[in-house]
Amino acid sequence: MNSPEIDSLIMLLSKLPGIGPRSARRAVLHLIKRREGLMMPLSQSLADTATKIKTCGTCGNLDTSDPCLICRDPERDKGAICVIEDAGDLWALERSGIFSGQYHVLGGVLSALDGIGPDDLTIDPLVSRVRDGGISEVILALNATVDGQTTAHVIMDRLADSGAKVSGLAHGLPVGGELDYLDDGTIAAAFRARRSV
Amino acid sequence: MNSPEIDSLIMLLSKLPGIGPRSARRAVLHLIKRREGLMMPLSQSLADTATKIKTCGTCGNLDTSDPCLICRDPERDKGAICVIEDAGDLWALERSGIFSGQYHVLGGVLSALDGIGPDDLTIDPLVSRVRDGGISEVILALNATVDGQTTAHVIMDRLADSGAKVSGLAHGLPVGGELDYLDDGTIAAAFRARRSV
Repeated sequence: MNSPEIDSLIMLLSKLPGIGPRSARRAVLHLIKRREGLMMPLSQSLADTATKIKTCGTCGNLDTSDPCLICRDPERDKGAICVIEDAGDLWALERSGIFSGQYHVLGGVLSALDGIGPDDLTIDPLVSRVRDGGISEVILALNATVDGQTTAHVIMDRLADSGAKVSGLAHGLPVGGELDYLDDGTIAAAFRARRSV
Repeated sequence: MNSPEIDSLIMLLSKLPGIGPRSARRAVLHLIKRREGLMMPLSQSLADTATKIKTCGTCGNLDTSDPCLICRDPERDKGAICVIEDAGDLWALERSGIFSGQYHVLGGVLSALDGIGPDDLTIDPLVSRVRDGGISEVILALNATVDGQTTAHVIMDRLADSGAKVSGLAHGLPVGGELDYLDDGTIAAAFRARRSV
């Protein structure tokens, strides 16, 4: 008995990750109560982003300009490339403020199960960027999953004779983490990598 | 370091119920990967719904026409009004297919905490609809919360001399529910309302 407009909006919203039909219905009710304040701005913002956002041809970041703001920033270190799986990981690293070099978005990780091979990722462009020179360190900031670590190993092999130092993120206790709640693998990794204090 | 378009889209999405900044970021990445298939249609659907959907002046339902489809349907029973808190409850009842009469959306429930009094709800229009005659039953399908039941009592008082029969939803075991997981109040209500079988 819903109007087709509402049904199609519910259907589209329920395609977003983490939103099912029930929360899509709640969201639609919430939106209809806030037409001017939220619904129209959201519609406009979606259209804006869809038309303006490009993928940076150098690093794969999402931005309105190509090359992106990070690639064009003269203040950032040109000698270090941090390799991440997708733009969301880039955003996470930028929020942490720990890194001020260049990025390289792989566009995924190798996965035999999902049929994702080296040609589906931007591994070749990464190797070219490193071989073009001027890169002293490549940091592989990939997820600590089997697929992520497999991908890291493949990239390490490809960069072995490039002259650049290749590093990966440390394994260990998350800050604020409790031993009792951690899996054995993490505890063992943190123990092996112990440091004198 | 995100572009302002992406930041404002994340901010708007995170205002939806059940979506925080983290899931809004995931949703934005998901949308940017599906610009033509999901992002532009969603933008269009939001604009469509925001401009076309009206609140029915009779029952408070959301529809493209006023009076809404349900109020205009000649097949539906004109003698019964089901009172619900908001349009989402109307949708839930329509999905169940149990009721084929008229609806009345209150627009909320009385709440001393949130400062919602009788004048903020459509209680007066409901009383007018019932007093205008032709209504034999008013079904109060309000949530089984303290605020919902308080509101039900206030409406019952207002309709006491209207001549219409006023009923409320039964309390008891949810279909498929297990005694062991139910709260004491529900078990007691189901026990008191036991029926011979």
